[in-house]
Amino acid sequence: MADDLLSNPRADRVKAVRALADRSARRRHGRFLVEGPQAVREAVAPGGGCVHELYATPDAAQRYADVLAAADAGGVRVRLATPEVVDAMSADAQGLVAVADLVHAGLDAVVAGAPRLVAVLAHVRDPGNAGTVLRAADAAGADAVVLTASSVDVHNPKVVRSTAGSLFHLPVVTGPELPDVVAALRDAGVAVLAAAGGGAHDLDDLLDVAGRAPQGVPDLAAPTAWVFGNEAWGLRDEDLALADAVVRVPLRGRAESLNLATAAAVCLYASGRAQR
Amino acid sequence: MADDLLSNPRADRVKAVRALADRSARRRHGRFLVEGPQAVREAVAPGGGCVHELYATPDAAQRYADVLAAADAGGVRVRLATPEVVDAMSADAQGLVAVADLVHAGLDAVVAGAPRLVAVLAHVRDPGNAGTVLRAADAAGADAVVLTASSVDVHNPKVVRSTAGSLFHLPVVTGPELPDVVAALRDAGVAVLAAAGGGAHDLDDLLDVAGRAPQGVPDLAAPTAWVFGNEAWGLRDEDLALADAVVRVPLRGRAESLNLATAAAVCLYASGRAQR
Repeated sequence: MADDLLSNPRADRVKAVRALADRSARRRHGRFLVEGPQAVREAVAPGGGCVHELYATPDAAQRYADVLAAADAGGVRVRLATPEVVDAMSADAQGLVAVADLVHAGLDAVVAGAPRLVAVLAHVRDPGNAGTVLRAADAAGADAVVLTASSVDVHNPKVVRSTAGSLFHLPVVTGPELPDVVAALRDAGVAVLAAAGGGAHDLDDLLDVAGRAPQGVPDLAAPTAWVFGNEAWGLRDEDLALADAVVRVPLRGRAESLNLATAAAVCLYASGRAQR
Repeated sequence: MADDLLSNPRADRVKAVRALADRSARRRHGRFLVEGPQAVREAVAPGGGCVHELYATPDAAQRYADVLAAADAGGVRVRLATPEVVDAMSADAQGLVAVADLVHAGLDAVVAGAPRLVAVLAHVRDPGNAGTVLRAADAAGADAVVLTASSVDVHNPKVVRSTAGSLFHLPVVTGPELPDVVAALRDAGVAVLAAAGGGAHDLDDLLDVAGRAPQGVPDLAAPTAWVFGNEAWGLRDEDLALADAVVRVPLRGRAESLNLATAAAVCLYASGRAQR
C-alpha cells in the first residue's frame, strides 16, 4: 500500500473514478464503480470481480482491514485517500470505493455448464428491482442471471448496491436478445418458464407435482430458466410465446399483481425448493 | 361534480392538499394523500378507504371515468382542476389525487376476527420495503398487516405508492409496541414466527411438515403471524425472544442475506401455500 494519502478531491483521478457512475464512461473504459464495504468485500474476494483499484479512507482501512488485506492479496492497487476524496468519488462509498472490470459472463459458457436454475430479466428497467432479483437469484441457488439487451445496465450504481454483493457471486450475462437466450437454454435442456399474471399454470400446483409432473406440465425439479418482464408492463405476447409455459404466482387476496422482485423471489424459491 | 375548474395552483386549498405529504400535517388533520389512478381506484372502491375529496384533471376524468363514478357513488366530493393545480398538489398524481382519512384498524378488532395470516413489521424504516411487504401480504392472502410504533408511517406517499392499492385491501394496524402485538396475537391462538437469518427452523423444512408438524415445530398450516425486522439490522434479541420460533429462509447460493421485502414475500407465500 502506498504511504501517501490522496488529498485533492479535484484531481483528474478522482474525476475519472466518479465518471464511472455514468454509463457512457463505463462503456468507454470497460470498468465500473463498486461502492461501500459490503460490495467491495465481495468484489475482492476470491472468485469475485476483477478489481483494479481500491480507495479507502484511513478510518475505513482500519475498520475493514480484512477487505484491504484481501485486495492486497489479489493484486489490487490500494490507495489511502482523505474522506473528501473518497466522497468526491462516490456519495455511497462509506469510506471504500473500488474500480472493477465490467462483469460479463458468456451465454455459451453458462449453458455449457449445465445450469439447473437461471433467472432471465427481460426489459427490466428499474435498477432496484434488477439488483434485488439478482440478490434473490443468488440466495435461491441460481446458477446464472441473464439481463437482456433492453434491460437496465447491471453496472448502474443503484443496481450494484441492490445486489448487496451478489453481482460477484454468480455469472451475470448481459446484452443478448431474449430469443437467443431462450434458444440457447432450450438447446441445453433447460425448460423456459415465463412468469406472468395470466399464466396457464399456478406456481403452487407446479410445486405439488414437482419431480413427477405429468406430460405437458412443467416440472420444477428439472433444469429451469425463469423469464421475468418489465416492472410496469410485464412480458409482451411475443416474449410469452417463446416460453415453454407461462406460470402465474397465485394471488390470494385482493392484490391485482405483485411487485416484480417479489414475484421473482417467490418463483425462484419455488424452483430452489423443488430442486433440493 | 361541480362544473367550475379549479385553476389557481397557489390557492390555500392546493397548499393544504400538498402539505399532507408531510407527517406533521397528516397527524394534525388525520388525513393523507392518495396519488395516481391505481391507488385512487382502490381507495374509492367499496370497502376501500374513507375518501373525502378527489381532484382530477379533465383528461384524467375522462380516462378514468370509472374511478370518478365510483367516487361519486361513494359520496366523495369530486372537483375538476387544471393540470397545474393537480401537479401542485402532487408530483405523482398522473391527473388524479385524493384526500382520505388515515387508515387505522384496531389491533383488538383484527385479533377478534380469528386471523389466519398476519404480517408484522417491526422497526421497518424504508418506505419502499414497507409498501412492498404490504402488497405481498395482500397477495399471499394475509388477513392484516401491523406496523409497530417504530416503523415508517404507512401514510408516507412512498409507502402508499409501493402498496399499489393494497393499503386499501386489508386492515392495517399502526402504532402498537411489538410486545403488545405479540401478546394479543398469541392470546388469539396465532403462532408468532420471527423471520431472521439465524433462525433455528428452515422455512423449507417447515413446509415439508405443514399440517402434521411434530410437537415443538411450528405448523405453517395453523394460524400464523410473521414478524419482520429492520432492513439493515433485522430484529433485536429481545424481539426474537418474544416469538414462538425463529425461522430462516434458506440461503442456497453465496448471498449472506435477503432483502427484507424478498424474505417477507417468501415467508408469507410459504404460509399461504401451507394454508391452502
